[in-house]
Amino acid sequence: MDGDVIKLLCDGLPAEAVLTDPDITRSYANDMASFCPAGRPAAVVLPRTVDQVRHVMRTATALRVPVVPQGARTGLSGAANAIEGCVVLSLTAMNKIIEINAVDRTAVVEPGVVNAELSRAVAEHGLAYPPDPSSWEECTIGGNIGTASGGLCCVKYGVTADYVLGLDVVLADGRLLRTGRTTAKGVAGYDLTRLFVGSEGSLGIVVRAVLALKPAPPRQLVLAAEFPSTAAACAAVCAIMARGHAPSLLELMDRTSVRAVNAYARMGLPETTEALLLAAFDTPDPAADLAAVGALCTEAGATEVVPADTEAESELLLKARRLTLTALEAVKSATMIDDVCVPRSRLADIFEGIAAIAAKHRLTIGVCAHAGDGNTHPTVCFDPADADEARRARESFDEIMALGLDLGGTITGEHGVGLLKRDWLARELGPVGLEMQRGIKHTFDPLGILNPGKVL
Amino acid sequence: MDGDVIKLLCDGLPAEAVLTDPDITRSYANDMASFCPAGRPAAVVLPRTVDQVRHVMRTATALRVPVVPQGARTGLSGAANAIEGCVVLSLTAMNKIIEINAVDRTAVVEPGVVNAELSRAVAEHGLAYPPDPSSWEECTIGGNIGTASGGLCCVKYGVTADYVLGLDVVLADGRLLRTGRTTAKGVAGYDLTRLFVGSEGSLGIVVRAVLALKPAPPRQLVLAAEFPSTAAACAAVCAIMARGHAPSLLELMDRTSVRAVNAYARMGLPETTEALLLAAFDTPDPAADLAAVGALCTEAGATEVVPADTEAESELLLKARRLTLTALEAVKSATMIDDVCVPRSRLADIFEGIAAIAAKHRLTIGVCAHAGDGNTHPTVCFDPADADEARRARESFDEIMALGLDLGGTITGEHGVGLLKRDWLARELGPVGLEMQRGIKHTFDPLGILNPGKVL
Repeated sequence: MDGDVIKLLCDGLPAEAVLTDPDITRSYANDMASFCPAGRPAAVVLPRTVDQVRHVMRTATALRVPVVPQGARTGLSGAANAIEGCVVLSLTAMNKIIEINAVDRTAVVEPGVVNAELSRAVAEHGLAYPPDPSSWEECTIGGNIGTASGGLCCVKYGVTADYVLGLDVVLADGRLLRTGRTTAKGVAGYDLTRLFVGSEGSLGIVVRAVLALKPAPPRQLVLAAEFPSTAAACAAVCAIMARGHAPSLLELMDRTSVRAVNAYARMGLPETTEALLLAAFDTPDPAADLAAVGALCTEAGATEVVPADTEAESELLLKARRLTLTALEAVKSATMIDDVCVPRSRLADIFEGIAAIAAKHRLTIGVCAHAGDGNTHPTVCFDPADADEARRARESFDEIMALGLDLGGTITGEHGVGLLKRDWLARELGPVGLEMQRGIKHTFDPLGILNPGKVL
Repeated sequence: MDGDVIKLLCDGLPAEAVLTDPDITRSYANDMASFCPAGRPAAVVLPRTVDQVRHVMRTATALRVPVVPQGARTGLSGAANAIEGCVVLSLTAMNKIIEINAVDRTAVVEPGVVNAELSRAVAEHGLAYPPDPSSWEECTIGGNIGTASGGLCCVKYGVTADYVLGLDVVLADGRLLRTGRTTAKGVAGYDLTRLFVGSEGSLGIVVRAVLALKPAPPRQLVLAAEFPSTAAACAAVCAIMARGHAPSLLELMDRTSVRAVNAYARMGLPETTEALLLAAFDTPDPAADLAAVGALCTEAGATEVVPADTEAESELLLKARRLTLTALEAVKSATMIDDVCVPRSRLADIFEGIAAIAAKHRLTIGVCAHAGDGNTHPTVCFDPADADEARRARESFDEIMALGLDLGGTITGEHGVGLLKRDWLARELGPVGLEMQRGIKHTFDPLGILNPGKVL
């Protein structure tokens, strides 16, 4: 069977685009999610053209072989994990920026373009591609589209979905579908473009994307504020947003996160603080905005408010925030990163609830959050060799999602469902929602060969 | 048959919510589109609760009766037109604003809330609901969602779709589906919310919406610039956008539009100009932004650049723009309003092409445009009693859509497909796109009772 697949694949792909050596294909088995199973691929293919992708899907349809599309495999939900006997379809070799248009504020790209490379390319035209997941130096636009990635700047600029205008998609049977538009506006028919964003490769293979761009904003200035409690910091977040401020970043690190970053990188962050809030503005007068926000922080109980005077100081504070997950990973030998998003008015409640869950299970759970969006990343630190601790880690991970749903939130703000949260998705959607979603899956993938077992 | 429907409807609705007098039901037959056929409804129902809507849909499913949902019937594509023997489901009586939350920047509303009423209500909380279709004083949020409405401020603030976070939808069989979220971010499963936005009631009945709000911006200041040609005005539009400006409005009126407005309302607009460009800014320093944009206009060949010094002057200029369609309707006894959107870099090309089409068919076609978005509203003026002129009007209307597609645009930027552009949608989508869209329709409406014959 594997032999048939490989033979047929090779009929329409250059030899170097079909990898079958198990020592090599094994390295394509996983994304960055913890505790998600992965099978052994029959082959890994690295097409360079749309026609080659179409050949792969025609082959998969003919032989009923599952296909797992992949970008840089920096995802955190197992969505890109291989399935036993599947064809891994890596889009990383399709990495051309086809067009950048400053008048239309659009870019046309292949799916394998790395996020940071696109950002740098459009910057030369005075433009910005805002979505900035933490993995932006590695992750691909195709992966960002598949997982509907967020990032630090979402509080002001929105998420990947807000920047995808149109797509070329190879369907399960190899036909080519063009969705959406190249224009600023358009309402011709149902919004298929948005359906593909976040579909984790389960509806089709994105081979080309038309992206919206923004004018490059001024450099942002950052302020750090220390709080005696996460509740006080969350109150500051609510005040900032209720007063109509438009920060380009509004991030919260709890004490565990702050200490982990210090231990990992000697950043000199204040160890006595219970919560560190970072706010940034890229407005015409960021210093004035930071002063106003600083006053709101003080009002909410901040013990120290330190606006960065220079870009270098701002960059240092952001570096600390970006290091948090890595630093928490160094606390114990393993972590499970959650991604629960609640209405920001419930942010204090979820911080309080997570602390209670950590205490109950005797675990270290560091929390950093895209606080302005109510999007928390509670990170459970544990030793997988300790079976009881691993069980408690898994339980706490689940309890955090249950808490998020109870607070009117969602099980995933930006990391996606993949394998990790499939059962929880059913709980969030309910039976009617699940049935409708499965109907859509069936419309696009009647044979069930596109990343089966992911999302739904 | 009609008797069965009415009897069953009355079993679950108060008597006053079921209208059957043909003199009354006839008044619900049409939206504001020209030249779209409309049938006679068997009944018009005006439910006040979700349960009543569910009863209507259960009844329609049981008897296989088509249902046409309606808001204020200000739509321009015939999407709300009655079908012979249908139940018209008017959501106008479900008009409560359920919640406004300044911290979460969200509103929860019933579908019959009028756009302007929501705007005024959220303004009291220092917030704004940006989408502002010209009919904003009459049109409903449910209608805005159904048609994915745009408006004047889209160039900076986006369209209705960008403000819908989650929906409660009554499905064809009466089941209740909840989509989306109440949080700022969320990626749990396929984006069903976005699928319903712009679906013209063909997939389900929206009975509740969670909307995103923005902080209320400062009042905008407007500038008017006169150009010796539409090409020069379009060049100014491109320069403004390429230089990274963020106008809150960027509108273009051609000479025909300017003269029509003067004739209609004695506005005193400059009659000698070939194109009038209106730009507005609601930034912290709008005067500075207007000065910069004014300089770009002069560079592009503007013969006169007049920044409004006061809000009153600004309001007068906007009033002129808002009157354009009404004024063009007064030129001849009938109009057909097109809604073609092109990449803004092709704006000059479509103005040139429309002028050629008008000359070829010996017709008056006034064009106003949301120029910043490349969204034109060519308005064909004609006398329907003159059969030949009516034929030429229809031909020119179609030729404008063909031109839009040739220029990389879409047949509809914001008015939707409805009945008016159904054939053209097939042309824009192509056979694969059409098949996928039909698959989605079938998933949600297997019996084909939801607004049949609209969109697809």
